[in-house]
Amino acid sequence: MSEAAEPGQPVSYPRAADLELIPFGFGPTSSRGSFELTPGIARHDGALYGGTGAAASVMAMEAATQRDAVWVVTQFIAQAHVGEVIEVDVDPLALGGRIAQLQVTARVGDRTVFCALGATAHPRPGGLTGQYLPMPRVSPPDDSGPMPFGPGSSEGREMAVSRRLEFRQATFVDDPPPGSLVLWARLHGIDELTRAGIAYLADMVPAAVARAAGKLGAGFSLDNSLRFADVPPSDWVLLHLRGELASNGYGHGSFTAWTPDGTLVATGSQTASMVHIFEADELEEWRSAIAARATNRQQS
Amino acid sequence: MSEAAEPGQPVSYPRAADLELIPFGFGPTSSRGSFELTPGIARHDGALYGGTGAAASVMAMEAATQRDAVWVVTQFIAQAHVGEVIEVDVDPLALGGRIAQLQVTARVGDRTVFCALGATAHPRPGGLTGQYLPMPRVSPPDDSGPMPFGPGSSEGREMAVSRRLEFRQATFVDDPPPGSLVLWARLHGIDELTRAGIAYLADMVPAAVARAAGKLGAGFSLDNSLRFADVPPSDWVLLHLRGELASNGYGHGSFTAWTPDGTLVATGSQTASMVHIFEADELEEWRSAIAARATNRQQS
Repeated sequence: MSEAAEPGQPVSYPRAADLELIPFGFGPTSSRGSFELTPGIARHDGALYGGTGAAASVMAMEAATQRDAVWVVTQFIAQAHVGEVIEVDVDPLALGGRIAQLQVTARVGDRTVFCALGATAHPRPGGLTGQYLPMPRVSPPDDSGPMPFGPGSSEGREMAVSRRLEFRQATFVDDPPPGSLVLWARLHGIDELTRAGIAYLADMVPAAVARAAGKLGAGFSLDNSLRFADVPPSDWVLLHLRGELASNGYGHGSFTAWTPDGTLVATGSQTASMVHIFEADELEEWRSAIAARATNRQQS
Repeated sequence: MSEAAEPGQPVSYPRAADLELIPFGFGPTSSRGSFELTPGIARHDGALYGGTGAAASVMAMEAATQRDAVWVVTQFIAQAHVGEVIEVDVDPLALGGRIAQLQVTARVGDRTVFCALGATAHPRPGGLTGQYLPMPRVSPPDDSGPMPFGPGSSEGREMAVSRRLEFRQATFVDDPPPGSLVLWARLHGIDELTRAGIAYLADMVPAAVARAAGKLGAGFSLDNSLRFADVPPSDWVLLHLRGELASNGYGHGSFTAWTPDGTLVATGSQTASMVHIFEADELEEWRSAIAARATNRQQS
C-alpha cells in the first residue's frame, strides 16, 4: 500500500505512514504536537531512541508547513523515558511562499529533550534536479546477512524488532571504500519509505565511526543532520555509512541513502561522543563471563 | 606567528587569529557579543557573506564556553548589510563538565539574521582519536591554478581579496571522484588556521553542486553544517567539495578539509536554493554583451 498522492493531488502532512511509526497528535494549527514515548519507539533501556527524535522533528516541520522537509538537524539535549509525553513546538523563523525556515523545540514539562533547525519547501518548478554520485554496488537485501553486532544482529534482533527496525549488512561488489559500512534497512509493517522514515532508520553513523576505528559499540549522538530528495516508492533503503574521524573522544561521520532503483534519496551526518566503544576481544570476554555466571547460577 | 597555546597552557577564546578576521566585541560574560558588518567580511553586494555567519557562530560558542567547537550548524534566515551591527547571543541548552550544547541567535535590531545549534567540548583524555579516510592526492598549492569562475577567478579576485579569501583549484593525481571539486584555500594575512577560519573558507558547497551538475554559478545557502577536529599549525587547507544531488531546485553537498600534512581537520555539508546557476555558454554571451556595450559606449 503506497501512501503516495495521485499526480496533482497534494500530500497532506503528517503522512499516514509516519503516523503509523510515531502516533503524533497535532493541535488545530499543526504548529504544536505531542506523542507519548512508548517502548516501540524507545531504546531497549527505555530512553529516547535518537532516530525517533530526528523523525519527530521532520514530521513536526512538515505538519506545520504542509511542505516536504529539505534539510533538518536535530540536537539531542536531555533524555526522555518511556511513558513520558513529548511536546513539540514549531516556530517559524522565515516563512516564504516556497521555503519555510523553522525551529523545533521538544520538551517534557520544562525539560528540553531535543531541538532542531531546518527548512521545508514547495518544489521549485523546473528547479535543478539530479544526482551526481553513483550508487555503491553491493549485495541485494536477500543476499545480505544479519549484522554481526548491534540492533540488526541476532542478539539485537528482539530489541530492533520492537522498534520495527530491520537491518542487513550488505557487502561491496568492488573494493570497499575506506571507513564504509553498507546496511539495507527497512521498517517492519510500513511499506512506504518517507523522509521521516529515513530519519528513523539512519541513526547509525556512530556505529560506523566505531567500526571504522576497528572497534565495536557506538557512542551517544550529539546531533543528527539530514538532507532530503524526493523518495520513490520503496520499502528497503541502502545506507552507505562512512566513519570519517574522531578527535579527543568525539566522532564524526556521514551517510548517503539509496532506494534499490539507484535513487539517492538522502544524505546525512552525525557527531557522537564515542564513550561506548570496546575491542572485539572485550566483547568475547564479556560473553564468556555472562555465560559462566549463567552456568554458576544454574548449578547453585 | 602561531597563536597555538604552549602545551599545558589553555587557549583563551575568542582566539586572537579569529579576532583579526571578525572584530567581535564580547560582553563581560562572553555569552553576548557583537560585530559590525564591514566590507571586508561582506559579499560584493554588501550583504552578509555566509562564511562570516558560520565563523561568527563558531567564535561565539567558543567564547561563551572557553572550549573548542565540536560541531556547529548555522541557518541563514535574513540578510544583514554593510554598516549594520550584528548582535550574537549564546544560550546554553546543556552545560556539562565536558560538553556544552548551545544555541546561537544573531540579530540586527529585532531581525534574526542567522541562528545556530552546536556543541563545544573539553578534550576527553584518552578519548577516541583517528582518521579513517585517506587524503585525496592532488596538486600542491604552488602547482594549482586560479579558479576558472567564482571568488578565486581573475574576475572574482578583487572581490575575494577584499574578504581575505584565496582559492586555487587543485587537480587530482588519480581519477577524480564523482561530483568532486578540490580547492586549496587560505586567509590572506592570517597564518593560523582555526575552526572559525575553516568555517569562513568552506562556504563553497553550493558552487560544487552547480559544478557537479555541469553548470556555473551557485545558490543561496540555507545552512552551513561543520564538524571539527584539532587543527595542526597551517595556513593552507584543502577543501575536497562534493556536489551530491539536487531535488526540485534544492541542492545538497558536503566537504572534507585537510591540512597539507594529511590531517583531516573538518567535515561539513550544506543545502542551497540553486537559483543562481547558468550554462557556460550563457556566461560567454553575457561577457560578449558586456564587452559590446563597453565598446559602444567608448564609440558614442
